[in-house]
Amino acid sequence: MMRFRALAFLTALVCAAALAFAEAKPRARDLGVPFDGIPGPNNAVTDVRGVEVGHTTLISGSGKLNIGEGPVRTGVTAIHPRGKNANDSVFGAWFTLNGNGEMTGTTWLEDSGFLNGPIMITNTHSVGIVRDAVIAWKVKRGEPDMEGYWWSLPVVAETWDGYLNDINGFHVKPEHVFHALDSAHGGPVEEGNVGGGTGMICNEFKGGIGTASRVLDAKAGGYTVGVLVQCNYGRRDQLRIAGVPVGKEIPEHPAYGQDVGSIIIVVATDAPLIPTQLKRLARKASLGLGRDGSYSGDGSGDIFVSFSTANPRAAAPKDVHDLKMLPNDSLDPLFLATVQATEEAVINAMVAAETMTGIDGHTAIALPHDRLREVLKRYNRLAK
Amino acid sequence: MMRFRALAFLTALVCAAALAFAEAKPRARDLGVPFDGIPGPNNAVTDVRGVEVGHTTLISGSGKLNIGEGPVRTGVTAIHPRGKNANDSVFGAWFTLNGNGEMTGTTWLEDSGFLNGPIMITNTHSVGIVRDAVIAWKVKRGEPDMEGYWWSLPVVAETWDGYLNDINGFHVKPEHVFHALDSAHGGPVEEGNVGGGTGMICNEFKGGIGTASRVLDAKAGGYTVGVLVQCNYGRRDQLRIAGVPVGKEIPEHPAYGQDVGSIIIVVATDAPLIPTQLKRLARKASLGLGRDGSYSGDGSGDIFVSFSTANPRAAAPKDVHDLKMLPNDSLDPLFLATVQATEEAVINAMVAAETMTGIDGHTAIALPHDRLREVLKRYNRLAK
Amino acid sequence: MMRFRALAFLTALVCAAALAFAEAKPRARDLGVPFDGIPGPNNAVTDVRGVEVGHTTLISGSGKLNIGEGPVRTGVTAIHPRGKNANDSVFGAWFTLNGNGEMTGTTWLEDSGFLNGPIMITNTHSVGIVRDAVIAWKVKRGEPDMEGYWWSLPVVAETWDGYLNDINGFHVKPEHVFHALDSAHGGPVEEGNVGGGTGMICNEFKGGIGTASRVLDAKAGGYTVGVLVQCNYGRRDQLRIAGVPVGKEIPEHPAYGQDVGSIIIVVATDAPLIPTQLKRLARKASLGLGRDGSYSGDGSGDIFVSFSTANPRAAAPKDVHDLKMLPNDSLDPLFLATVQATEEAVINAMVAAETMTGIDGHTAIALPHDRLREVLKRYNRLAK
Amino acid sequence: MMRFRALAFLTALVCAAALAFAEAKPRARDLGVPFDGIPGPNNAVTDVRGVEVGHTTLISGSGKLNIGEGPVRTGVTAIHPRGKNANDSVFGAWFTLNGNGEMTGTTWLEDSGFLNGPIMITNTHSVGIVRDAVIAWKVKRGEPDMEGYWWSLPVVAETWDGYLNDINGFHVKPEHVFHALDSAHGGPVEEGNVGGGTGMICNEFKGGIGTASRVLDAKAGGYTVGVLVQCNYGRRDQLRIAGVPVGKEIPEHPAYGQDVGSIIIVVATDAPLIPTQLKRLARKASLGLGRDGSYSGDGSGDIFVSFSTANPRAAAPKDVHDLKMLPNDSLDPLFLATVQATEEAVINAMVAAETMTGIDGHTAIALPHDRLREVLKRYNRLAK
Repeated sequence: MMRFRALAFLTALVCAAALAFAEAKPRARDLGVPFDGIPGPNNAVTDVRGVEVGHTTLISGSGKLNIGEGPVRTGVTAIHPRGKNANDSVFGAWFTLNGNGEMTGTTWLEDSGFLNGPIMITNTHSVGIVRDAVIAWKVKRGEPDMEGYWWSLPVVAETWDGYLNDINGFHVKPEHVFHALDSAHGGPVEEGNVGGGTGMICNEFKGGIGTASRVLDAKAGGYTVGVLVQCNYGRRDQLRIAGVPVGKEIPEHPAYGQDVGSIIIVVATDAPLIPTQLKRLARKASLGLGRDGSYSGDGSGDIFVSFSTANPRAAAPKDVHDLKMLPNDSLDPLFLATVQATEEAVINAMVAAETMTGIDGHTAIALPHDRLREVLKRYNRLAK
Repeated sequence: MMRFRALAFLTALVCAAALAFAEAKPRARDLGVPFDGIPGPNNAVTDVRGVEVGHTTLISGSGKLNIGEGPVRTGVTAIHPRGKNANDSVFGAWFTLNGNGEMTGTTWLEDSGFLNGPIMITNTHSVGIVRDAVIAWKVKRGEPDMEGYWWSLPVVAETWDGYLNDINGFHVKPEHVFHALDSAHGGPVEEGNVGGGTGMICNEFKGGIGTASRVLDAKAGGYTVGVLVQCNYGRRDQLRIAGVPVGKEIPEHPAYGQDVGSIIIVVATDAPLIPTQLKRLARKASLGLGRDGSYSGDGSGDIFVSFSTANPRAAAPKDVHDLKMLPNDSLDPLFLATVQATEEAVINAMVAAETMTGIDGHTAIALPHDRLREVLKRYNRLAK
Repeated sequence: MMRFRALAFLTALVCAAALAFAEAKPRARDLGVPFDGIPGPNNAVTDVRGVEVGHTTLISGSGKLNIGEGPVRTGVTAIHPRGKNANDSVFGAWFTLNGNGEMTGTTWLEDSGFLNGPIMITNTHSVGIVRDAVIAWKVKRGEPDMEGYWWSLPVVAETWDGYLNDINGFHVKPEHVFHALDSAHGGPVEEGNVGGGTGMICNEFKGGIGTASRVLDAKAGGYTVGVLVQCNYGRRDQLRIAGVPVGKEIPEHPAYGQDVGSIIIVVATDAPLIPTQLKRLARKASLGLGRDGSYSGDGSGDIFVSFSTANPRAAAPKDVHDLKMLPNDSLDPLFLATVQATEEAVINAMVAAETMTGIDGHTAIALPHDRLREVLKRYNRLAK
Repeated sequence: MMRFRALAFLTALVCAAALAFAEAKPRARDLGVPFDGIPGPNNAVTDVRGVEVGHTTLISGSGKLNIGEGPVRTGVTAIHPRGKNANDSVFGAWFTLNGNGEMTGTTWLEDSGFLNGPIMITNTHSVGIVRDAVIAWKVKRGEPDMEGYWWSLPVVAETWDGYLNDINGFHVKPEHVFHALDSAHGGPVEEGNVGGGTGMICNEFKGGIGTASRVLDAKAGGYTVGVLVQCNYGRRDQLRIAGVPVGKEIPEHPAYGQDVGSIIIVVATDAPLIPTQLKRLARKASLGLGRDGSYSGDGSGDIFVSFSTANPRAAAPKDVHDLKMLPNDSLDPLFLATVQATEEAVINAMVAAETMTGIDGHTAIALPHDRLREVLKRYNRLAK
């Protein structure tokens, strides 16, 4: 990923961390956090073949809030279910655990069973610009969508970064959206203070983007489940890591006094699921959040979207489609994988994120790795 | 269909009218009511190949209500999606237009996307006995269901017949349920005062069971949509037939002063639809009701269920299923067929039903055929 | 309403027709279309006290489509539940009859039961710009919302005007949104080719904005129900007006060969309804559409939103709120009023709209008033 | 509670354990399991004033399954929101985490926002008999319900006990339902192998009925949240207690190889919540299950119902009701209490349940208390 070129009206722009750097950072299981299940090669949503993720990260300015001027701590993340060059829908579904948030495009996702185009995640007040920019990006390609419609209903979700970011300055611009879309890639996914997650706070530690995956054993079909979260929820004293009350053990430097945050969860799989089944998969992400201690406060926009990369061309114009469908009674390993990958992706977001100071000197501290290891050890839960 | 054999504890029991008789009765279009679209050979839900319908009709006693003794004006109707001898699920879905009613089994229908076994319709206070009797009927077959479960979650719906029937006498018994299940058949469907519809009232005329169907033209796939209703809703002055304000023109002998009734609508098709699509089909039945003038009052249980007989064995134990799916952008003719068949099935129920007197001398008069023709003619809408 | 001032980057902009002119135009009932129920003084959504409606209408250019240049036939409509100067939420709810469309803000509407701020309607590809502009408009006021949140989740809906309008030129700009918001007013509402409805097509006639209202009698509480639609749905041959098959009788000059359109329906009332009840109210709008002949095709975004202006300050910070709630069994007159007002608002939209030619010479003809009267008369349904 | 009197056709019947005995049994926190939050005086759903719980427990026979003869290990549990003598609805709502189960009465619960009468829980194949028996029990009282309707739509839920119980023998009879309804009481609630929970299995240990409560501090309004579960879900290796992987540490004597079970969760509160808010409360129970390690398998009927005892007479016939409503932004302590009480109620069910042998010698062992303490201690999580 290259540095995004400055444009005339550009606010300062900092790219997502280079891959080499991202890989050098320890992830939760590197620190000895024990998780169940077998992750894929990147322990990332991109372990589901075809999935690509791109980030645009906007960091500039410091000090006192000056609306429209900054400080800026925000961005946008794009997830392409079949890669940025595909024009092929996927079966999809969604679920709301707590609705204090926005995910556009869900009405048609619900009724059609299809997700057309990318999933975008950004800050609360930039959902509109991102949505229309996705349409503009599609318009350049000059085709109707896979279902034959000439209009687009993009899926764009958000969490609120106004504690660190000049959210009312509307700093996300169309070119940032295009960059996230165009720079998306497979392989390792940048985590922490990147993309839509740049200014996010999770359990009163610095949060942001996190990801994880699980691979089912061959008997269960060998399918992969990948999860990506934009993590901005939670109260410190509720945080559990691997069941250990880590939040209570590390009470220092809370960012907020209450749960006003949110989490967007994207669940991807290559298992051949139809929309009815994908809705259930999305709903199960709740249980992973439960393991981490969330109680999903009134201020949370805990909104989840799921898709399956199986059944290519299922939305193409044709008389009758041939589909593959996993039987319902084979879903258990996928449900469990979703719970496990969600549980881990949230912790990965906090482990990857670094302390950040934003508007008005507001600071969210990173989860201290050494303290985490100490606490896990005291509860006999340190894996290595 | 033969007279159901009397049993020791039996209340008097009157079978559904013999087929020969049923066929002799004029239906709405025989009276010159104009409807759009092309019906199937029986203009009935059974035009969807495999669908079988059975009724048990319970009529006994007259005069003053004596709870537990009668008068009895009730029954039960069974709809087998693939016939009574199949052990094969169908894809299904449901929708509630107004929820003052019961349809059991919908939670798993919603989540699994499958309908296992028959759809039953009876009176409000007999839903439980019918439900457990369906399980008993399945238990006799001694197998788990198609999805491998050893339990059953039958779909049983109801409307309230307590204006004519001793509903608190609980007159529906397991053997009546078995009879409806076992006597189900394809071909013409008995309408009016039969089965679950025996004591029902529709737009303040005598209501009950009605059915209709539509066949798509070959370009649209040649699929069939069949609708069966148990019709117990509506206020006279709202009734429209073929758009004509018939209810206002025939105000005599209203049965009720307000809409306290309900309608159960079953939509069947052989088009290869997945559950997401079937839910939309069920929802469209609302528009057929709208054409007939319903405003779906607070007391209505307007609950609709839909299924597709395509994709046999889709719930069987297997690694991965091969399915057929119609593209979403081919659904329009099915949506229109559902609206049209619903519009007609309601009118068919009223046309077939005959004046009935029940408890305490309460009477619901039949829609007078000659008056209907007169009114249609006055509005230039008489088809023949 | 004054002419909107031209800005530097402005496309040509034509204001909504002046009120005087709007009032001079006949409405459906002026032409003798018979409708049931008693309308309010303006027969408009603004008969619900406090409701204000504003339009920005963008019409410029003609001839061949040149993306970004025009022709432009679009706009934006704002509905303020309590007027443009209120900072007070209303109880609200929503419903989807067919989901091929967008209405942002519904996840929180669903979960909170509150609608914060205005409802906006525009074209499909301008939803994002309108959404963010509503936030910017609120930011200028510098307060958290009524529920204490510092973020906004505006409700913005759309239908597709790309047959007449250069929709991919993204002609709606923030200042157009501000104008619609700031120019909103009570009293008569402009109908037809105005605001978000400017380029819309309904039953293959020119469509757009329509409105109607009903006033309950004193015994039922004397409440008002107002409906506003942005009408862009339907196939000509299905159109019924007052039950008469007008679409079949006036087959000339169809704009499309299939139902690819949509309808947004806003239902307002001053009856004290809680969100559970408002959801039912929204759902009943389907039955009004049914009366007009809709079958809600796959391409339709038929999405409805409802609100109650009762219970002011119900979302204000406070220990415990005192609410008023109408009993469920008093809802029938409101349900019927919703059905009736929806039925009429759609016809009002077509009656008000005027023939329009847009991109590439595409033309949508107005419903011919004289022909309509002829047809109604032939079916003995002309009211005067 | 007295021994239920034998009737002519009676199967052997064993009453719920006497209260004195029930109180003598240790509960989870007595064993040193650490839980957050402050429980009410009984740490039970009955801490919400007015709530009464009654059980009928049916245990008879042993050895080989003889359908209709036994062995019998089943029962029925009744929860009266306002006590058995009230004829007053409560606001209510429901949520499905996984739908492989039944809860009748939810369609009207959803649409009306009211719960009329008791919540019943039994085995899967006795839902019907229990439903109709609740109606019969109401009929004896001879009144329409609070909303003026003469019909009843009881709420009856289930989980499957066919591993231990002759479920196809249909051993629950109307008199057992009446007994559960009539014997309901406030104060301590019998847990474990009682009522509907008699034959249930949870995380491959013996399960059944469990309960817990939380009391909010005065600043948060001092409200109480009570939870009652019928616990029949889960795979041993997923079980976490207070975050500790207890299931993996005590792998002996698993009852099943897969998650084919379910859980019904009842959430009660005296906080003045409207139905929209109660739906959110029900949904949060998922997070409590998540803390205990559930992944909510395909075979699970994880269905939750919630109600508020505030707003008495809200469904009574009246012009307009006066309600109290807690603001949305005061819900967080109630959400957290729901999560905490759910987490504890599940563990309480397992702690109270005793080893049971049922049909065909199938045995479900009790969670061994001493082993539990050992494991908690090893993970530094033993509270005392």
